[in-house]
Amino acid sequence: MLIVMNPDATETDIWRVVERIESLGFKAHPMPGANRTAIGLTGNQGAVDPAPFAELPGVAECVRVTKPYKLVSRDLKHDKTVIRVGEAEIGGEFAMIAGVCAVESREQTMLTAEVVAEMGCKWFRGGAFKPRTSPYAFQGLAEEGLKILSDARDAFGLRIVTEAVDEPALDLVEKYADVIQIGTRNMQNFSLLRRAGQARKPVLLKRGMSSTLEEFLLAAEYIMSEGNYQVILCERGVRTFGDHSRFTPDLSVIPAAQRLSHLPISSSIPATALAIVKP
Amino acid sequence: MLIVMNPDATETDIWRVVERIESLGFKAHPMPGANRTAIGLTGNQGAVDPAPFAELPGVAECVRVTKPYKLVSRDLKHDKTVIRVGEAEIGGEFAMIAGVCAVESREQTMLTAEVVAEMGCKWFRGGAFKPRTSPYAFQGLAEEGLKILSDARDAFGLRIVTEAVDEPALDLVEKYADVIQIGTRNMQNFSLLRRAGQARKPVLLKRGMSSTLEEFLLAAEYIMSEGNYQVILCERGVRTFGDHSRFTPDLSVIPAAQRLSHLPISSSIPATALAIVKP
Amino acid sequence: MLIVMNPDATETDIWRVVERIESLGFKAHPMPGANRTAIGLTGNQGAVDPAPFAELPGVAECVRVTKPYKLVSRDLKHDKTVIRVGEAEIGGEFAMIAGVCAVESREQTMLTAEVVAEMGCKWFRGGAFKPRTSPYAFQGLAEEGLKILSDARDAFGLRIVTEAVDEPALDLVEKYADVIQIGTRNMQNFSLLRRAGQARKPVLLKRGMSSTLEEFLLAAEYIMSEGNYQVILCERGVRTFGDHSRFTPDLSVIPAAQRLSHLPISSSIPATALAIVKP
Amino acid sequence: MLIVMNPDATETDIWRVVERIESLGFKAHPMPGANRTAIGLTGNQGAVDPAPFAELPGVAECVRVTKPYKLVSRDLKHDKTVIRVGEAEIGGEFAMIAGVCAVESREQTMLTAEVVAEMGCKWFRGGAFKPRTSPYAFQGLAEEGLKILSDARDAFGLRIVTEAVDEPALDLVEKYADVIQIGTRNMQNFSLLRRAGQARKPVLLKRGMSSTLEEFLLAAEYIMSEGNYQVILCERGVRTFGDHSRFTPDLSVIPAAQRLSHLPISSSIPATALAIVKP
Repeated sequence: MLIVMNPDATETDIWRVVERIESLGFKAHPMPGANRTAIGLTGNQGAVDPAPFAELPGVAECVRVTKPYKLVSRDLKHDKTVIRVGEAEIGGEFAMIAGVCAVESREQTMLTAEVVAEMGCKWFRGGAFKPRTSPYAFQGLAEEGLKILSDARDAFGLRIVTEAVDEPALDLVEKYADVIQIGTRNMQNFSLLRRAGQARKPVLLKRGMSSTLEEFLLAAEYIMSEGNYQVILCERGVRTFGDHSRFTPDLSVIPAAQRLSHLPISSSIPATALAIVKP
Repeated sequence: MLIVMNPDATETDIWRVVERIESLGFKAHPMPGANRTAIGLTGNQGAVDPAPFAELPGVAECVRVTKPYKLVSRDLKHDKTVIRVGEAEIGGEFAMIAGVCAVESREQTMLTAEVVAEMGCKWFRGGAFKPRTSPYAFQGLAEEGLKILSDARDAFGLRIVTEAVDEPALDLVEKYADVIQIGTRNMQNFSLLRRAGQARKPVLLKRGMSSTLEEFLLAAEYIMSEGNYQVILCERGVRTFGDHSRFTPDLSVIPAAQRLSHLPISSSIPATALAIVKP
Repeated sequence: MLIVMNPDATETDIWRVVERIESLGFKAHPMPGANRTAIGLTGNQGAVDPAPFAELPGVAECVRVTKPYKLVSRDLKHDKTVIRVGEAEIGGEFAMIAGVCAVESREQTMLTAEVVAEMGCKWFRGGAFKPRTSPYAFQGLAEEGLKILSDARDAFGLRIVTEAVDEPALDLVEKYADVIQIGTRNMQNFSLLRRAGQARKPVLLKRGMSSTLEEFLLAAEYIMSEGNYQVILCERGVRTFGDHSRFTPDLSVIPAAQRLSHLPISSSIPATALAIVKP
Repeated sequence: MLIVMNPDATETDIWRVVERIESLGFKAHPMPGANRTAIGLTGNQGAVDPAPFAELPGVAECVRVTKPYKLVSRDLKHDKTVIRVGEAEIGGEFAMIAGVCAVESREQTMLTAEVVAEMGCKWFRGGAFKPRTSPYAFQGLAEEGLKILSDARDAFGLRIVTEAVDEPALDLVEKYADVIQIGTRNMQNFSLLRRAGQARKPVLLKRGMSSTLEEFLLAAEYIMSEGNYQVILCERGVRTFGDHSRFTPDLSVIPAAQRLSHLPISSSIPATALAIVKP
């Protein structure tokens, strides 16, 4: 359910609704918008009686949400979400995330970061943990790689986006990076999504390589349902019969996601390790 | 095989090679380039002895073509092909083909054509023959529709692109239109491709909805092997598991096709009946 | 619309309904079942008034068909259709169609036919017209191949299934063979489907390589809407990302088609040029 | 690399090779076959010098493995692997795993287990941890569910197969069940695969819904590279454009996997919660 507040509802009004939701054993997710706040209610099994909320001061209406996702939805929050780290933002003006596929050495990373910063780009990416199809392939420099990325941030004023492949990696990524990336192979690793939902940093969630839009939004919902509302969707190509490119970039998902969700959605161009983010 | 002429080879030199090819029972396809002409040889089963050609005046070299397609290939013709009808062109400057899905009436068509012409667009599309999934759906106005399109050309100075769904339709389309469109469902209708190859007008060939790039190029090769070298490739989306759009637009095929072929390739955006052509 | 007759309706009753349908400018498709006859009405645009039929003797009810296909549907004919040529049948007992990919020579064909007949198989297949991805590949022996197939029939008592790739080929296949095959690349070659619908021989329709079940059934509907109700559906694998087999056999379509349609559906195993037909 | 022992090599010979491999910092994986033992060597970066092994007693030959997977390969172990738990086996005679989708209650589970045991089936499946697309869907009874499954084993002599969705779940599944299932969404959850590779129980690995055969085999390789050689591959359908079934069952992967790997491969029919295992 979704409880929409009046434009002139006070902080106290909102706080009272949140309290009522939690006293009934549910979870409350207040989402401030440009004009008014809506409060998502999750944790229910089946329909929730709107009566205990409708009577509270400042409540405009209680709306039943029929879509399987709630917190990602434009129904809950009409204004688009902008993710900010310092003065860098994703979802507002045009943004680009550039960098290296894997952090292979301090030299390679620093050199690239310098070029990226000179281009005027504010976001830097590079993998310290690499999910590899083969157990025998290079799996990344791990914490050593994160330290290099952190130094690149300090040296060039960049914001760092890097992947967490499991929960121990996420603990480290949360410590060293600015944005936690969840890769395509982990888009339905629900335990990892829940852990990302408990992190205090934004999450860039890559679409699974054969994920439908609904599955993609529900993966974001996993993160948000734990209280982390800072999610960036990232289209990265889908698996098709095509053999002229490794994956088929699916640009048609971008306007479709924007219609349904307030979250920003970016597009990744793997061949060149560039991720272009469009508001 | 591919016979590459010297830059200073004369028309007579070229004509002599063509004659030699034909006297041996093969087909000759001279392709003039910016600097020199290459002559494709088709109709052979297995390897062809280069000796009878290598000795002729003006011949620079004889190259065996190992790819399954020959005439569409950049090996034969390095410069990109530009299709021209009057002063309108596809494959040179940016071009757009706009119009209606089906020609439904004179009024609807004329009104749209006027807007299209005012936009500065030189190409107009509209279906007089519609390939329909159901036998009970409207199949187009046929020759009546072609006459309307022809009138739109006269009224607004537009060039007409329209689909031929079978051989009788192609006879009519060739008569009334400027560019013959072969639709996605007919990309491997090889008899229709051969007939299009005998036409004296350019052919816009849409990619089959689950066609690989090689199959797409070989469909163009069918047309060219009959002597019609005026082929425009058209990407129009592929069939995938995705359910948020009718087809998944595969923009990655455009640079891939440009690497392999000299033919222009356009991209069709079916939802809006627009086909954007990029050199 | 679908006009269901009473179990005791006479031939005259049926004939009267057909006549009434045709007098209104529609097409009538009587389908005798085990207990009673239903008559499909096609050629209408929009809903048809049932009144002129409901009043006729022997009419049980007039049913609006909401699915896009009518004649292929179990709504029209509940009993499954069995295709018979002499004493050979498809759709009744287990049947197998075996043979060669292409008819390459009299010797190869006769030798294979002998083995096939000795196995107890009643159906023989082999291509005289081959739809080839490349214009330079062997396209089949054409009428010469059909004569060889015809001789194999006479010599071994087999029934011949062979592909028609276009309308001239269909004229010949209809003359020499027992079952006309429409290949996967022509499943949406609607002119060819209509021509097959005017043939007096059964049609084996292969599923398009990226065709949905609804598109497949509508392709069969094209054939039936012209009056040829002898259609065998043939699953032959679909195009997926998989690279360990040329196509992914989709056995799940068989029960799904059987639920919706009375037509027999077979499964083709291309690697071994075997087509197994299950009732 | 792969070190093949002579048929008459002794345990001491094998042990000496293992020791030599480990002394060089690599991992040794002895795989006894019907006639002789082969020892896989992993952990190397680039080619390994065969000299230190070729000189050891009992060594027949040292073979470089060029495929990306080694331990799953028929090159290492020609005889097919049979997984045994007590007298129940998978990969030998025909085996069936039957049960419930999710363990919902003691009653439902016991009732089903009784029927399954009466059918003569030796394997029982049911989910105590359910990977759910939506965070708000029922996620399984967790340890409580495992206890119910364990009771079903005791009551009916069945062997239990159940899914582990993350590492804490795997700890519990390993304790209560007989076979650890890794689901399709976790086929490339490499941390979970490594953890399964340290378990002392067999692992049933479901194919990712858009996984190629090579990716599937490499996921099994992850498990085996940690020392757990008891892996059952499980085909469970792939994602395609088809909309008549939830997934398209890809039976063609079964013979393809059997050609490349010695591991048993089963096929899952999700609609009916049956998993049929064929040798």
